[in-house]
Amino acid sequence: MTYTIHIKVMPLKELLDPQGKAVLGGLRQLGFHSIQDVRVGKNIALTLEAASEQEAKALAEQATARLLANPVMEYYEVELSSNTKT
Amino acid sequence: MTYTIHIKVMPLKELLDPQGKAVLGGLRQLGFHSIQDVRVGKNIALTLEAASEQEAKALAEQATARLLANPVMEYYEVELSSNTKT
Repeated sequence: MTYTIHIKVMPLKELLDPQGKAVLGGLRQLGFHSIQDVRVGKNIALTLEAASEQEAKALAEQATARLLANPVMEYYEVELSSNTKT
Repeated sequence: MTYTIHIKVMPLKELLDPQGKAVLGGLRQLGFHSIQDVRVGKNIALTLEAASEQEAKALAEQATARLLANPVMEYYEVELSSNTKT
């Protein structure tokens, strides 16, 4: 079966996020003064072939740990998408 | 009240995603052969002050349309986070 998995990779809360700060500055200049903080991370959609949901999720976790996220600076969440095709 | 809103910005399905293709190549080299496609987008977390959920979501939609996403190349989803602080 083919599964779609979404992986959210965000900068750790303890760290500065210069990209987020730049976006916040831009939003303030456009008049969005009620926005207090912005953090920018990655969103990765994987399409993969696996025998079961568990296998698909395990594979995505491995891929994230080995290539997609840097645990020194980022945390991640792996989520099986609901629109799974057979 | 303070709301946290997550905005997912992904490249349109009709368009090539060179970053995703590069990641797919990397994953294949690491031995993840069951992964068929990768698409990489942004995930933006906004913390903002608003009177109601509706207002918070409307503000985030406006901010996304004006600065955060490029509708020519990207689509987006705005989602109110469940961990809302008072």
